[in-house]
Amino acid sequence: MTPDFANFLAHCQQRVQQALPSLLGNIGSEYADADASSSLQRLGEASIYSVLNGGKRVRASLVYATAQALGHDSRAGLDDIASAIEMIHAYSLVHDDLPAMDDDDLRRGKPTCHIAYDEATAILVGDALQARAFEVIATLPGTNAEAKLALIQQLSAAAGPRGMVGGQAIDLAAVNQQLDLAALQTMHQLKTGALIRVAIAMGATWCEADQQQLAALDRYGKAIGLSFQVQDDIIDIESNTETLGKTQGADQALNKPTFPALLGIDGAKQLAQDLHAEALQALTGFDERAAPLRDLSHYIIARQH
Amino acid sequence: MTPDFANFLAHCQQRVQQALPSLLGNIGSEYADADASSSLQRLGEASIYSVLNGGKRVRASLVYATAQALGHDSRAGLDDIASAIEMIHAYSLVHDDLPAMDDDDLRRGKPTCHIAYDEATAILVGDALQARAFEVIATLPGTNAEAKLALIQQLSAAAGPRGMVGGQAIDLAAVNQQLDLAALQTMHQLKTGALIRVAIAMGATWCEADQQQLAALDRYGKAIGLSFQVQDDIIDIESNTETLGKTQGADQALNKPTFPALLGIDGAKQLAQDLHAEALQALTGFDERAAPLRDLSHYIIARQH
Repeated sequence: MTPDFANFLAHCQQRVQQALPSLLGNIGSEYADADASSSLQRLGEASIYSVLNGGKRVRASLVYATAQALGHDSRAGLDDIASAIEMIHAYSLVHDDLPAMDDDDLRRGKPTCHIAYDEATAILVGDALQARAFEVIATLPGTNAEAKLALIQQLSAAAGPRGMVGGQAIDLAAVNQQLDLAALQTMHQLKTGALIRVAIAMGATWCEADQQQLAALDRYGKAIGLSFQVQDDIIDIESNTETLGKTQGADQALNKPTFPALLGIDGAKQLAQDLHAEALQALTGFDERAAPLRDLSHYIIARQH
Repeated sequence: MTPDFANFLAHCQQRVQQALPSLLGNIGSEYADADASSSLQRLGEASIYSVLNGGKRVRASLVYATAQALGHDSRAGLDDIASAIEMIHAYSLVHDDLPAMDDDDLRRGKPTCHIAYDEATAILVGDALQARAFEVIATLPGTNAEAKLALIQQLSAAAGPRGMVGGQAIDLAAVNQQLDLAALQTMHQLKTGALIRVAIAMGATWCEADQQQLAALDRYGKAIGLSFQVQDDIIDIESNTETLGKTQGADQALNKPTFPALLGIDGAKQLAQDLHAEALQALTGFDERAAPLRDLSHYIIARQH
């Protein structure tokens, strides 16, 4: 990682970590009643606990990097957009970790929401984070209603049954099944890819990218969305529990299909490299301001956790 | 129930029941892969199962009745708005019925989603319905981006931690606790009231109500939102399991606070009547086209299931 990119990433993380608590906290204080207000405060705390879980903020960074590539990195509203996408991501992790789903007690070395709080709270935290994400986008600064509406169209499609939730449904059904490569790619394009891709699309829409830029950035987004999951599968095999903060080989234990299982570890690594090359290729029309986007693609396939 | 109102209600139910399946179905058919496509189809089916559960469609009817009161009952988009609100309502029931929440096996005499399918599917169905509701609003017909954005602001606020989900959080914490009347009212204003109120507000916004009409309709909405819950509590005590389609006295069994517990059954019935009078009072500025709104208020406090 170059010093410039390390700085960029730290800066993005700092921006979104700062924005999230103020977007989620301070609920319940409007009620004089102690019972009502303490329950709402607890919901707010559990929501903040779940979004501030030491994540790498790849999706938030993609929003900022896209804005920078388009010359608009100081545009108002980027923190809100980045936060809303991280809320959707966090909600999906909270629900995914539930006993009825992947049943994970640890997430990045910390107790998952239903362990730190309880299962009912974790269900509600996920539900609250999703609603709040759309509210944050709907109340973005500025008067461009068309652009805000476009963002909501993009985010709701990416998060819904034809996007992330659909991918989860395929993933659930895939336990103990032999998926072929096409099915595996479809599952990941929806489960992980859709939200990564939409982070770029939303950044691009908010920064008024033209049609050609939108198409190029979407090719980039599609490539890194998939390489992200390929690398996740590789990490799951190669890392140990301590580095990963979750039970190592969890997907293998659940007999879930993975890219290394289908392609071998070397085949999976080659695929990750090919997708990185594809991502860089998509950005050839952009100048040096797209450096963070290029670095993010490399970061995604080089990370070890 | 007058014949006119019975017709109105049947017509509303028919409209929304017809709109919902086409808004939720037909996912997965775009994938040639059999595994991916069957998982997505199952998610779609489970979503349709959960929204087409014989509900009374009070929220949908309020959208139509508000439009009629404003002289715009044939405006394009009302079916989508009504459906989106019913999706949010249905998702909240699916999650509320989960074992970690109220643990209900029956809903209106039919197996709840996690019984008919499984728990993981029920979690995903709720998540998918919420995302889809916002997508439906974001893609309403017509070019009025400002109005669509206003609807999304209203719906996300009503569904989120300061609305419905917040009410659920207070409700959960209230098991085995003695809430006073103020806390009980806050809980219900959020848990049930917010979505009922927003159904009216969204209908009014979409039909371009003026400020005075919006304020009057919101007073109406606030009154019936609360009377709805008071009557639910009364029904819970007076009905038997067969009529209700769920275990009778479930809330009492869970030691949840109820209006009859706090006010006595006669006191609760008086409160319902007072709220009905308040609702009618709020509508004095409207002509005979508001008859369905008036009838709905009466229907809410007169229903026995």
